[in-house]
Amino acid sequence: MTDTPRSLFIDEENMALATDLYQLTMAAAYFQNSCTQRATFEMFVRKLPEHRSFLVSAGQEQVLHHLQHLRFSGPVVDFLRRHPVFKSVSPEFFDFLLEFRFQGDVWAMPEGTLVFPTEPILRVTAPIIQSQIIETYLLSHMNFQTSIASKAARLCLAAEGRAVVEFGSRRAHGPQAALLAARAAYVGGCAGTSNVLAGYLLGIPIYGTIAHSYVMSFDSETEAFRRYFNVFPENSILLVDTYDTLEGVQKALDMKVNFRGVRLDSGDLLGLSRRSRQLLDRAGLRDALIVGSGDLNEEIIFELTSHGAPIDVFGVGTELATSKDAPALGGIYKLVEEQKDSQAVPKAKFSSDKATYGGAKQAFRVSDERGKFVRDILALADEQAPRGGQPLLEQCMEGGVPVGNRGDVHATRRYVADQLGRLPGAYQRLYNAETYPVQKSPKLEEVRRELEEQYRGQPRS
Amino acid sequence: MTDTPRSLFIDEENMALATDLYQLTMAAAYFQNSCTQRATFEMFVRKLPEHRSFLVSAGQEQVLHHLQHLRFSGPVVDFLRRHPVFKSVSPEFFDFLLEFRFQGDVWAMPEGTLVFPTEPILRVTAPIIQSQIIETYLLSHMNFQTSIASKAARLCLAAEGRAVVEFGSRRAHGPQAALLAARAAYVGGCAGTSNVLAGYLLGIPIYGTIAHSYVMSFDSETEAFRRYFNVFPENSILLVDTYDTLEGVQKALDMKVNFRGVRLDSGDLLGLSRRSRQLLDRAGLRDALIVGSGDLNEEIIFELTSHGAPIDVFGVGTELATSKDAPALGGIYKLVEEQKDSQAVPKAKFSSDKATYGGAKQAFRVSDERGKFVRDILALADEQAPRGGQPLLEQCMEGGVPVGNRGDVHATRRYVADQLGRLPGAYQRLYNAETYPVQKSPKLEEVRRELEEQYRGQPRS
Repeated sequence: MTDTPRSLFIDEENMALATDLYQLTMAAAYFQNSCTQRATFEMFVRKLPEHRSFLVSAGQEQVLHHLQHLRFSGPVVDFLRRHPVFKSVSPEFFDFLLEFRFQGDVWAMPEGTLVFPTEPILRVTAPIIQSQIIETYLLSHMNFQTSIASKAARLCLAAEGRAVVEFGSRRAHGPQAALLAARAAYVGGCAGTSNVLAGYLLGIPIYGTIAHSYVMSFDSETEAFRRYFNVFPENSILLVDTYDTLEGVQKALDMKVNFRGVRLDSGDLLGLSRRSRQLLDRAGLRDALIVGSGDLNEEIIFELTSHGAPIDVFGVGTELATSKDAPALGGIYKLVEEQKDSQAVPKAKFSSDKATYGGAKQAFRVSDERGKFVRDILALADEQAPRGGQPLLEQCMEGGVPVGNRGDVHATRRYVADQLGRLPGAYQRLYNAETYPVQKSPKLEEVRRELEEQYRGQPRS
Repeated sequence: MTDTPRSLFIDEENMALATDLYQLTMAAAYFQNSCTQRATFEMFVRKLPEHRSFLVSAGQEQVLHHLQHLRFSGPVVDFLRRHPVFKSVSPEFFDFLLEFRFQGDVWAMPEGTLVFPTEPILRVTAPIIQSQIIETYLLSHMNFQTSIASKAARLCLAAEGRAVVEFGSRRAHGPQAALLAARAAYVGGCAGTSNVLAGYLLGIPIYGTIAHSYVMSFDSETEAFRRYFNVFPENSILLVDTYDTLEGVQKALDMKVNFRGVRLDSGDLLGLSRRSRQLLDRAGLRDALIVGSGDLNEEIIFELTSHGAPIDVFGVGTELATSKDAPALGGIYKLVEEQKDSQAVPKAKFSSDKATYGGAKQAFRVSDERGKFVRDILALADEQAPRGGQPLLEQCMEGGVPVGNRGDVHATRRYVADQLGRLPGAYQRLYNAETYPVQKSPKLEEVRRELEEQYRGQPRS
């Protein structure tokens, strides 16, 4: 029996525990075995989800917040100390947790950078306890926000210049996921969101007017519209499909006022948008917007835009806020290098489908003379940039202290748009896009060969 | 440029804005038009996601927290007051928001109740601004947690009595989604989770030991195992597949100690679990557990259990924490009744695929003499229970004050297990299950016919 319903909010007091238990048991094992060597981990994806030909990286800001503010509070440490799992662990470990600060170096692609498989989005170097313990929290933000920003970019491609607005809070995976989805969707190219908190916390444009229940709660559609218009004379997008879409448009026009637009939420959006446009134009409301919504995805939007549907704004909910066709991104965070006896020792896995490249890495993006992206080159972190190649990872934390400049979400959104303008069309078709080339540098391949020889050649314990 | 990275935490100070903008614009329109009538909304699903034959309702506790603590703080109201969308709205509306308290009556199925399409999971009656404004937050919790609890129940069915543990935090839709997934998975039947915060906040059992990176950071697998075992002599589940699974098992056995078990995270789990079991048994470790993990879902688990794979615990990540095959539940929250001139007026939609039943409703579950569920009957809220029928919705809030008893997650989990024991097998097969019957009462059908006649028969404005 519980009398106080729980909010299940994450906050700075408890976020250290927003992780997998094994991060903490490994920390204890490293601690008691005096494993203090610096270790480098990289976050990357092995392959793209189906129908994706690029990813828009997102979530770096929340990761940086976490690294800067990660603390193990008294109550949190007491919980761990008393938990049966930790009963054989030495008391010094809990004192260590109370003093814990992340003091590592972090290199990351600036948020919004287009990214391809095998390229590190973030690279973390710190004493191994520190670089390991942050894995789960880091991945949950990067995987989710990158999924959504990438999905948003696809939807915006399909919309061919019309606005796409994120409407999916009610289907998102809880209230925080709704907020994160709104943020990532905006970064990926959406014009805004229905999520008010995203407006409050981040200054993202917010949109929305009325629901069917509002229309139904008045004796007539006309009355519902009029009463709404009187309160929002400049911002009324009237939902016209509660009973019959075209009659709804007509009832809005019967008010003889300049409402902002109409929203069509069901039915044949192509036909209905055309006939609605005619009705609006004939009444002289050429600037009135037509918003289309209702279970939209990039395929439907593409079909509508291909047929020239006069829809100005697409509202996308479920498909966007959950990235429904690819609801989980398999981003991983892997040990790639350790310092042993002041030597950097590359580390890699060699199982058939899960092989990784050892060594701390940098990704370079090579552009042609018009600024179009030609290829990426994955290299060791200390290699020189290839001709025409720009390094993608920048240092954003040094010894636990944030460094460098970071843009806000508006700058990040412009950065995404700029890059999409430079990524040749063949790599950003909605379906059957070509694979953008990511080459490995000769040195990186050499490290891989050496690691593989060591691994195959010697008894492993 | 921003210097302070944002956490994007939801808290009591900002949660009033964790909603769609139209909830607030509709509130303003209702307020200025003096729409103070009480309105009843019901949350339900129209149809089940593919492969689901029942849902385990979850999220009620977080909804109740929200209703109890929903306030519009000063900064939040200032934000709205200054937002261009609200520029024509009267100042009194913002004063109203500052004083806002949810004062409605809420009836809900106790958390964990098995639910079928059209049945209200929650029913909210309050002045229309209050009953409308809570929609988005309510749906985001109910839709997500119900998805996950239902997915967990399926995974546990497939596991046929073996334990299923939720491992998916890194692929969940952000840190709060990870926590909510851990909670809902436990409610749905999982033995526990890797998410430590779920243990801290809710007392859910937490599990986990080591990762591949841990094994790789030592010079040999044997050394990695021994050093971990020394710190956790009673809780070492050793990950044996970093290099070669069966060699890994042998290296664990070479320690000549009683470790708790092994985890197999890749490869042919059926063959590897059998051979691992033989090795463990021959060494006398008959109690050592075998944990299987790695991209599991109910289909793979069912195949493994069908073939008698000696796996004691299944760790399920991505598929469970995102309900990957059905990542969005289409739960909706619809106006079903309004008080007008002290009369209850039922409300419904009649569009072809979105028709709803008007009137405030109760669902009754009819059991046979052995306690097995036979059918449900959806009726008006004030109808008498049919013979053998138990009402499913209970009052949990009266005038904004929580009433009734609520169990904690452990009681809720037992309640789910009890109900699954009473739901005949035909309705809970993993694939091609029969459709559990939900009948509508004659009175409910009568209301529907009347509403439809009114709607078809009269000009609508």
